Amino acid sequence: MAKQKKQPRPKAETPKGFRDYFGTEVTRRKHMLDQIAAVYHRYGFDALESSAVETVEALGKFLPDVDRPNEGVFAWQEFDEKGNGDWMALRYDLTAPLARVYAQHRNDLPTPYRRYAMGPVWRNEKPGPGRFRQFYQCDADTVGTSSMAADAEICAMLADTLETVGIPRGDYLVRVNNRKVMNGVLEVMGVEDGPVRDAVLRTIDKFDKVGESGVRELLGKGRLDASGAYIDGVGLEPENAEPVIAFLTSKGADAAETLANLRAAVGDSAIGVEGIAELEQIAELLAAQGYGPDRIEIDPSVVRGLGYYTGPVFEAELTFEILDEKGRKRQFGSVAGGGRYDDLVARFTGQKVPAVGVSIGVDRLLAALEAKGRLSNDGQGPVVVTVMDKTRLADYQAMVGELRQAGIRAEVYLGNPKNFGNQLKYADKRNSPVAIIAGSDEFDAGKIQIKDLVLGAKIAESATLEEWKERPSQFECARADMVAKVREILEADNG
Amino acid sequence: MAKQKKQPRPKAETPKGFRDYFGTEVTRRKHMLDQIAAVYHRYGFDALESSAVETVEALGKFLPDVDRPNEGVFAWQEFDEKGNGDWMALRYDLTAPLARVYAQHRNDLPTPYRRYAMGPVWRNEKPGPGRFRQFYQCDADTVGTSSMAADAEICAMLADTLETVGIPRGDYLVRVNNRKVMNGVLEVMGVEDGPVRDAVLRTIDKFDKVGESGVRELLGKGRLDASGAYIDGVGLEPENAEPVIAFLTSKGADAAETLANLRAAVGDSAIGVEGIAELEQIAELLAAQGYGPDRIEIDPSVVRGLGYYTGPVFEAELTFEILDEKGRKRQFGSVAGGGRYDDLVARFTGQKVPAVGVSIGVDRLLAALEAKGRLSNDGQGPVVVTVMDKTRLADYQAMVGELRQAGIRAEVYLGNPKNFGNQLKYADKRNSPVAIIAGSDEFDAGKIQIKDLVLGAKIAESATLEEWKERPSQFECARADMVAKVREILEADNG
Repeated sequence: MAKQKKQPRPKAETPKGFRDYFGTEVTRRKHMLDQIAAVYHRYGFDALESSAVETVEALGKFLPDVDRPNEGVFAWQEFDEKGNGDWMALRYDLTAPLARVYAQHRNDLPTPYRRYAMGPVWRNEKPGPGRFRQFYQCDADTVGTSSMAADAEICAMLADTLETVGIPRGDYLVRVNNRKVMNGVLEVMGVEDGPVRDAVLRTIDKFDKVGESGVRELLGKGRLDASGAYIDGVGLEPENAEPVIAFLTSKGADAAETLANLRAAVGDSAIGVEGIAELEQIAELLAAQGYGPDRIEIDPSVVRGLGYYTGPVFEAELTFEILDEKGRKRQFGSVAGGGRYDDLVARFTGQKVPAVGVSIGVDRLLAALEAKGRLSNDGQGPVVVTVMDKTRLADYQAMVGELRQAGIRAEVYLGNPKNFGNQLKYADKRNSPVAIIAGSDEFDAGKIQIKDLVLGAKIAESATLEEWKERPSQFECARADMVAKVREILEADNG
Repeated sequence: MAKQKKQPRPKAETPKGFRDYFGTEVTRRKHMLDQIAAVYHRYGFDALESSAVETVEALGKFLPDVDRPNEGVFAWQEFDEKGNGDWMALRYDLTAPLARVYAQHRNDLPTPYRRYAMGPVWRNEKPGPGRFRQFYQCDADTVGTSSMAADAEICAMLADTLETVGIPRGDYLVRVNNRKVMNGVLEVMGVEDGPVRDAVLRTIDKFDKVGESGVRELLGKGRLDASGAYIDGVGLEPENAEPVIAFLTSKGADAAETLANLRAAVGDSAIGVEGIAELEQIAELLAAQGYGPDRIEIDPSVVRGLGYYTGPVFEAELTFEILDEKGRKRQFGSVAGGGRYDDLVARFTGQKVPAVGVSIGVDRLLAALEAKGRLSNDGQGPVVVTVMDKTRLADYQAMVGELRQAGIRAEVYLGNPKNFGNQLKYADKRNSPVAIIAGSDEFDAGKIQIKDLVLGAKIAESATLEEWKERPSQFECARADMVAKVREILEADNG
């Protein structure tokens, strides 16, 4: 074979699992992040932006998927002049970097340290439909206090945040549980750390899907899946599985009843009793602030996958139904979660630093608002000043200058002006509300033509409607009235 | 040696050359990005957020430092199931990704495509004081038009943007040049592509530093540096260096004079004449819109390092003086730059797509505003409700609830409340304007204590001043008046 002399052209593609965001995809997310930041800020949290790159050492092995502790990050080795190589990686969440930041700067930071952070995180996972390897998180954490008031506050703030971004009360629920209670149940059952414990926890996590009888089967001999596959069980005797069932079904009509049921489930396990006391404190503080079970409730079936949680855990779920890819109705599900993690900073300093935080999955929350049609229509394009006469570019620029001065988004068509149809097609593609047209006749007469593109589209859709007759979609006006007339149209469109 | 059983603790450090941003460092940058985005948006540019990760193939070798085309990016190899590895890298600017995005989505995008983008970029360079390996860029580009109106518009927008973020007219200058003119000069000199041409370009770039005589020496035999080192020259005969000198010193009293001098410098070089015609068009369009030489001027000494520019290039410079690290006065220098690049998209598609853009160095611009004391003091901490009685947590939470409801940033002190002094120290560290104090006496009487911390600090600074006598720094008020009284203090502080 002959040697190739020319490099082939590079492919114009994002790497697998990555994507680009255009126009309103960017501005709507930004708007939501701004709204969330405003709530966090009002609650007294300060902004933090840590670097996207961390040492692998500092990130540690706290990946959400505990089954694969060594995978999941984008990492590379960097060699210094002596040939020694440090491993660096892109952050996979905002909590591991927070632990590093707090350990590094703890002498300068206030205690408790309340910070919020928002930005992309990266996961080196197999991409799938709707699963991307770069996505946004938006976190708030309180580091350095073991007070349950911090946990209660974050649950309340999460409810406030969801309402602020446009999820009305009744369409979401913040569900609170406590790892200590679950540990108490396992203690009562005599299940130690190890594979059996992990298997029991994974089974608990399936409660939402398979229900009480399903969990019974999975804790025992096993279960025939809906697909016909047989899932091996944990192998517990039925009587040994009872505490788990009691725990999972302990949700009562109100917090008091749930707590009483949980008390029975943990028996005299010290850690279990401690966990219940913590849940009780959270419930009391929230009740005193008026956050009732319509917004925040204790729910023993909340597990949260992350291995590092040590106390209360919580999850915000959207309770309305949407249609899935196959057109079936399903609940939208979780959009945020968090909990207490008291060991993350100790990795660096050797001293336990109690902390609690929440993370909002911004992209999922945006998808939810989109599914409910609750995203504002902020995608209006610019007023396009078309070019009829190439020698008049300065005059066209003066027009957009005036419009911009008046706060109106505007631009001169900068493509090849030869084909006027292309200019109107461009305005259409840009979702422009108005096109301005002026040729030598108009310039001589001190006039311009204004084309109302929104109205034009409406008339094209329903040409016979009486209502449009009063309002022509294209009209002439004095050049001096341009800004006022354009503003009238924009107000009519948006009103 | 015995085997180490325990892993040593990880170091709590950012990787070398990276840093964290806290509080106002984050919010001030965000505010500036918002201001810039608003200008770009008003000019008709749409938002784009491409992925931070690109294939190395797509990024290409367009690194700013053309001397080291293979270095400068953070890259890693990713293996798929078959063991084939693609190289991926963090983007080093926002222009290379734009070329990839436009090539990938060109059938769906309007032409011209006007987009803005803002976000971090990464450079794998040796870090130095004030030089970080992750920093923000904020770009606007018009892709798909060769009209000089696009270049003029971007220069005008750059001037508008600088004024919007707080650089007053007179404190900045946008300087415009054209690569084609420079190429015309080299053509006249008979200098072809190659090492001599590169050496001449590097010398031209030093004009600002070494002046006319310095450039003469460097183009000829060489030059004794200020440090005493001898810098080898390009080795041109004095008469052959003349066109370069004529070009560099061609700046006249106004655009017309500069253009006339440039015309003389390029002689009958076709490419040079074309470049001058382009500069003339830009100058005319800007003059018609009222952008005079106090804001934008033609300046033949602007080079811009990037290898990919093919036509007009421009640079925004801040003209005021600041003190450098050694306390010497110096001009602040460049904060933004850009130009026309007609070949970037062709890498992917084979077809030339004309484009022009600008990139603002946001961190440098923030540093400039900081040096001039022009950043707003938006760093006010939350109102801190102190905890005198641990059993009253719900009451304290109710207080912050009311304050937040009224739009006032507030929080309950969530650390260990035992030492009251620590609570006030915390409020101080948070830059809190007000502390609320209530123990059992106050609760019984339906009162609270309000401590004005800003006033307290002022009184501590100048205890004898008469003006403070009327306004006590701590006073009692009815619990029901809390929000109104706190608001009064905040207004007095900020007024």
